[in-house]
Amino acid sequence: MSTPSDTPTKANWAEQAVADHAGAEHLTREEQVLARIEKARRKKSRVKEERITLSHGAGGKATHTLIDAVFLDAFRNPVLEAMEDGASVTIGGADESGAGGVRLAFTTDSYVVHPLFFPGGDIGDLAVNGTVNDLAMCGARPLYLSTGFILEEGFPVADLQRIVDSMAKAATAAGVQIVTGDTKVVERGKCDGCYINTAGVGVLERPGLLSAATAKPGDKIIVSGEIGDHGVTVMLARGELDIEADVVSDTAPLHELVADLLDAVPDGVRLLRDATRGGVATILNEVAVASQVAVIVDEASVPVQEVVTGASELLGIDPLYVACEGRLVTIVDPAHADAALAALRSRPLGEKAAVIGELKDDPPGLVLLRTSFGGTRIVDMLVGDPLPRIC
Amino acid sequence: MSTPSDTPTKANWAEQAVADHAGAEHLTREEQVLARIEKARRKKSRVKEERITLSHGAGGKATHTLIDAVFLDAFRNPVLEAMEDGASVTIGGADESGAGGVRLAFTTDSYVVHPLFFPGGDIGDLAVNGTVNDLAMCGARPLYLSTGFILEEGFPVADLQRIVDSMAKAATAAGVQIVTGDTKVVERGKCDGCYINTAGVGVLERPGLLSAATAKPGDKIIVSGEIGDHGVTVMLARGELDIEADVVSDTAPLHELVADLLDAVPDGVRLLRDATRGGVATILNEVAVASQVAVIVDEASVPVQEVVTGASELLGIDPLYVACEGRLVTIVDPAHADAALAALRSRPLGEKAAVIGELKDDPPGLVLLRTSFGGTRIVDMLVGDPLPRIC
Repeated sequence: MSTPSDTPTKANWAEQAVADHAGAEHLTREEQVLARIEKARRKKSRVKEERITLSHGAGGKATHTLIDAVFLDAFRNPVLEAMEDGASVTIGGADESGAGGVRLAFTTDSYVVHPLFFPGGDIGDLAVNGTVNDLAMCGARPLYLSTGFILEEGFPVADLQRIVDSMAKAATAAGVQIVTGDTKVVERGKCDGCYINTAGVGVLERPGLLSAATAKPGDKIIVSGEIGDHGVTVMLARGELDIEADVVSDTAPLHELVADLLDAVPDGVRLLRDATRGGVATILNEVAVASQVAVIVDEASVPVQEVVTGASELLGIDPLYVACEGRLVTIVDPAHADAALAALRSRPLGEKAAVIGELKDDPPGLVLLRTSFGGTRIVDMLVGDPLPRIC
Repeated sequence: MSTPSDTPTKANWAEQAVADHAGAEHLTREEQVLARIEKARRKKSRVKEERITLSHGAGGKATHTLIDAVFLDAFRNPVLEAMEDGASVTIGGADESGAGGVRLAFTTDSYVVHPLFFPGGDIGDLAVNGTVNDLAMCGARPLYLSTGFILEEGFPVADLQRIVDSMAKAATAAGVQIVTGDTKVVERGKCDGCYINTAGVGVLERPGLLSAATAKPGDKIIVSGEIGDHGVTVMLARGELDIEADVVSDTAPLHELVADLLDAVPDGVRLLRDATRGGVATILNEVAVASQVAVIVDEASVPVQEVVTGASELLGIDPLYVACEGRLVTIVDPAHADAALAALRSRPLGEKAAVIGELKDDPPGLVLLRTSFGGTRIVDMLVGDPLPRIC
C-alpha cells in the first residue's frame, strides 16, 4: 500500500510529535486533546481531483482529505472538529457552560449498500444498527432515530415493506424508536432502488471523553470479534466472484456490549469505534495520527474466519480493510485490558474478542503489522475503493 | 381535483366527527388530540400500487398513504404518530414522565432538488433552511444539524464546494451548527450529482402543544407571505417551459419569525407549518382532517406574485399546491389574529403576511376555496406529482 499521499510525510509527523510533546506535559488529558484539535485546524488540506471518485466515499485517505478540505473547513466548529463517530453536545443548561443541561450524542449515516438484501441482513437493519453503533461508540445510550428514504421510481413496494419491517425489528432489538422520517422519490436511473439516511440521538450518561486523540503508548488494542464478515458477504452477494462461501453479515447493535465494557472498566477505555468502511486498519491509522503513537498489530492475533481470509485474497484486499457492521475496536489502558476482554467475551456478540496489538512511542503516526511470517509492514490508510457501496 | 381516493369518504368522516364530538366535550385539548391519534391508529391504509411512483414523493395523497400503510404501521410509536414536521421527545428526566428532562425537537429531510442551483438558492441552503424550518414549526429553537451527502462519481468538486459553502452560510445565518456528517459516493448513473440529508435537533423552551389536530371552528388561517415562489423558480430553472420570469426562490430560515409570533401570541397559535412539497393546500387538508373542521380559503386574499400565477397557469397547477421554502402557514385563535398578523408583518420575511381564510364546523374534513369569481370549489389533497424534485 505505497501510493502518493496528501498527508504530511512521516518525518513531518514525527517532528510535530516531538514539538507537541515538549510543551504538553503540564496539560491535562482534555487540554492535550484540544491542543491536537487546534493543531489539526491549522493544517489546510486540499482535494487535488477535479471530480468526485468512488475513493472519496471509501472511508480512507481520499474521504479524510475531502472531509478536511471541504466539510471541516466550511462548517468549522469545535464539536465537528473532534471528528468522532458522532457529535457530543449539551442542551438545556442554565448558562453557557451547559451546567444543568443534558449531554447528547448526535450522529448520521447514509446507506447505499448494493445489493439491498444480503445474507444476514439488508439495508434496513444495517441503517438502524449503524446509527445505533455510532451513538454507542460515543459512549451514549441510543434513544431516537430519524430516517430519510430516497426511492427510485419503479422500486417494488414489497421490497420497501421488507426493508421497513427489517428496520422496525432492528429498532426494537436495539431499544430505540424511529420518531420522524421523510420520503423522496426520484426518476428512474437517478438512484439505485433505495437509499436510506438515519440520524440518531442518544444520551451521554457517563462522564469522560472518548477520543482517538487520547491513546497512550502501552495501551492495548482489542477487537470484539472476527473481522470482515460484512464486507465479504456483500461482495459475494453481488455474484461477481462466482464463488460461494458460508459467511453472513455481522450487522448487529453494539450498545449493550459497550455498556458492559464501560461498566467493567469505566476509566480504562480511551476510544471506541465500530469498524465499518475502511475496516480496522482505518481506525488504527486515525488513532496513530490523532494520538501520535505507533500502532503495532500482531497479525496472528487478529480474529478472521478462514472463509473471509480466502475471499479477501481473491478480492485482492487485506481483511484489515474490510468493513464490519457489528464489531468494535477499543483502545484500553493496559492495566484494564484483561477486565475489558472479559467483559466483551461475556456476551455472545463479543465472545471472540481478542487483543490484537498495542501502542508504542515510535514511529509516531504509523500502523505496523507484525506478519505471521515474522516480517513487519506498514498498514497505511486505505487508498482507492476496493469495496464500493459496502454500507 | 376529483379522483379516486383511498381515504374514507366525506360521509364517513362527517359521521366520525359527530361521534367524536358527542363524547369529547369533557376532554382537555391534549386528551382530544390523543384521542384523534388513537382513532387514526385504528384506521388501516394500504398502498395499491405495486411499484413506487413519483407521486409517492410529492407530499400529497400518495405520500400520505405510503407513510400510513408502510412507515407508520411498522415503526408505530406515539411520537411518530403525531405526524408533525418533527418529533418532540423528552430526554434526561429523572423518571418515566420525563420531569426534569430537556424537551427536544428532532427532524429530518432529504433533498433531491433538480437543478442543484437555481435563482435565489441551491440545494445547500435549501437543506439547511428546510430542517431549521421544520424545527421552528415544532416551536423549537434550532441548535444542531447533521448532514449526509450522497454524491455521484464524477460530480465536480467545485460544485460540492459551492454547495457546502452555501450550507455554511445558511447555518451561520440561522444560528445553528453542523456538528456531524457522512459522505457516500455511488457509481455514475446511480444518483443525480448530489443528494443531501439533513437532520436537526432543537430545544423546546415553550410549554404547549402545536398540532394539526388542535384547530377549532372560528380559527383564522394566516400565511406569512407570497406563496409558490420556490416551486415556480425551480421549474423555470429547468428550462423546460422556455419562458423567463423575474422570480427567485423564497428559501429562508423562519425560526425568528416564529419566535416573534409565539412571543406575541403565546396562547393563540394552534399550528405552524412551512408550506413545502404539496404547498399550502396540503397543509390545510391535513388540518381539515386532523381537526375535523371545514377550511374555507378566500382566493382573493392569498398573496401570490403575478408572475407566479402566470407561470402556474402554464404549468397547469394551482399556486396553492406549489412549494414554498420560506413561508409558513399558521392557524390562530381569532381573538389573537390581529396580533399574530402584526407580529409576522414586523419582520421583512413576514411583511406580506395575510389572513387567507378561516375554519368552520361544516363540512368537516374538507378544504373549500371561495374563488375570485364568486364560486366555491373543493381543494383536495395533491394527486400525482406535477412538480417532481422541487426540494
